[in-house]
Amino acid sequence: MEAQYVLGIDVGGTSVKIAVLSVEGNLLEKWNIPTDKANNGANVLKDISSSVDEHLSKLKLNKNQFIGAGIGVPGFINMEKGMVDFAVNIGWKDYPIVRILSECLDMPVAVDNDANLAAAGEYWQGAGTGADDVILFTIGTGVGGGIIVKGDILHGVGGMGGEIGHVTVVPEGGAPCNCGKTGCLETVSSATGIVRIANMEAEKNKESSLYKQKQEGIQLTTKNIFEAAALGDQTADTVIEKAMYYLGLAAANIANVLNPQRIVIGGGVSAAGEQLLFPLRNHYEKFALDRVKLDSEFVLAELGNDAGVMGAAWLAKKYLKD
Amino acid sequence: MEAQYVLGIDVGGTSVKIAVLSVEGNLLEKWNIPTDKANNGANVLKDISSSVDEHLSKLKLNKNQFIGAGIGVPGFINMEKGMVDFAVNIGWKDYPIVRILSECLDMPVAVDNDANLAAAGEYWQGAGTGADDVILFTIGTGVGGGIIVKGDILHGVGGMGGEIGHVTVVPEGGAPCNCGKTGCLETVSSATGIVRIANMEAEKNKESSLYKQKQEGIQLTTKNIFEAAALGDQTADTVIEKAMYYLGLAAANIANVLNPQRIVIGGGVSAAGEQLLFPLRNHYEKFALDRVKLDSEFVLAELGNDAGVMGAAWLAKKYLKD
Repeated sequence: MEAQYVLGIDVGGTSVKIAVLSVEGNLLEKWNIPTDKANNGANVLKDISSSVDEHLSKLKLNKNQFIGAGIGVPGFINMEKGMVDFAVNIGWKDYPIVRILSECLDMPVAVDNDANLAAAGEYWQGAGTGADDVILFTIGTGVGGGIIVKGDILHGVGGMGGEIGHVTVVPEGGAPCNCGKTGCLETVSSATGIVRIANMEAEKNKESSLYKQKQEGIQLTTKNIFEAAALGDQTADTVIEKAMYYLGLAAANIANVLNPQRIVIGGGVSAAGEQLLFPLRNHYEKFALDRVKLDSEFVLAELGNDAGVMGAAWLAKKYLKD
Repeated sequence: MEAQYVLGIDVGGTSVKIAVLSVEGNLLEKWNIPTDKANNGANVLKDISSSVDEHLSKLKLNKNQFIGAGIGVPGFINMEKGMVDFAVNIGWKDYPIVRILSECLDMPVAVDNDANLAAAGEYWQGAGTGADDVILFTIGTGVGGGIIVKGDILHGVGGMGGEIGHVTVVPEGGAPCNCGKTGCLETVSSATGIVRIANMEAEKNKESSLYKQKQEGIQLTTKNIFEAAALGDQTADTVIEKAMYYLGLAAANIANVLNPQRIVIGGGVSAAGEQLLFPLRNHYEKFALDRVKLDSEFVLAELGNDAGVMGAAWLAKKYLKD
């Protein structure tokens, strides 16, 4: 019997998402289990394995019908060695994830970084479908992302490819970033960065509704910043303009290097839709080469939280077939 | 008899370089012919073909011993269709180069942009040897370059991949660039950009030897700027620092995205060697992620003007084999 299914697994700090898909990308079932971080995550893979066994028996599927499993992990991954070098949120360090999980599951396993797999998921089954050169920006607490070149994930020599949140956009006097540098894209265009800029701008513009909200003890969030802008608040508008100026600059510079067909914007902040895309496109067009502009379009991510498991399933299909 | 040779052809505005190599990369012969730009370059391919015939008969080689020919052209190339969309220096526009040249030469032909092939040449037989992820910066009149990802040229969707000279490094108030934008890397870190900055700085610093040279009617060049800096001229030093600040920023941002193993610096200005690499590394290290820094090293290009033909030969080997 020819193998025709793949497992996608997306490990997060609170829960692990698991999905069973056909190799064509049809979703048969998906579910979550909690992430047991006790003992540096020693039980996570066993928990995944028992949960998979349960679901496969309910689905009446045998393991020999599977090409294998792909697994996404938040952290530094050595894909070729099948190791998690370091995943601070789970507790894994120099952890031979491919060896252990393939023993537990009794099928071949491939591992990659969760941000790369989210890009692969959108490329395979979401907003990137039909394009071979795709960049995903995930705008959430931080700015993450992944890059697809000629239909494959760009890893670079050490697996650090696609660290687009750490492109420097404020070379002098930028805010400190978690990575140890200053002025990274993440410091100005993430939810955290947008709120930081809003807090500063609100103090300077006391007529702004953002200032009033702060006075009332309301903590600013990207949601109420975008809402205030939609209601015509100039300061909120300035904040969004600033964040999108830097995102547009970074996206254009990356696009001048990669010449992508599709630039996908995902993550929580992308819920703002056109309110975000409109200024983003404006700034992008100032900084991108004419032909690069013509070749590329901005689209919103389509898979939401499922991008990771879909990409993990793609990884199994791509790297474990034959 | 198994095909064991490749032809590399590098078309330039004044001359065409041609080389015969073994598939292992050993150079059997190389020579130049003048580029006949009359009638929009209508004779260039015929000239190449007759010259190749002559040399092959001298070398006692038959065409069936060749995998094929790779050709590099300065301009916009559609590699898949085998077309030169536009090569302003030669006069070609919508020119079906692969069809015509393969008929003339009676062997398979592949075409790419000359900057991409220079990167491939350094990757195959020069400063990039042994690395699979390489960036080449060519610092000459402009800033060109090419990118190797997983052992292949990065093209992007429309063949514009690797346009690293047009990354914006001066987002506001930058000098105009030939591409139509402002503040591109090319406006500050090319020979032209360095001389432009030097002329401005010399006017502000009348004690500088650069100012004195200008007073004597000597036109500043990168060569005398680097010489003045070597002799301790502060202004010349400031000029080089500025150019390398921007090159370091751009290189770090590209490296944060691509995670390369080797960053190769070529082109005429790279003759400055450590005088260029030392400040470049300094600025790069401020803007690159720690792990990206650890993975990458700067090296000087090794093939000089031969990079293009070597890369063209590599193209034939890579894309025409089988």
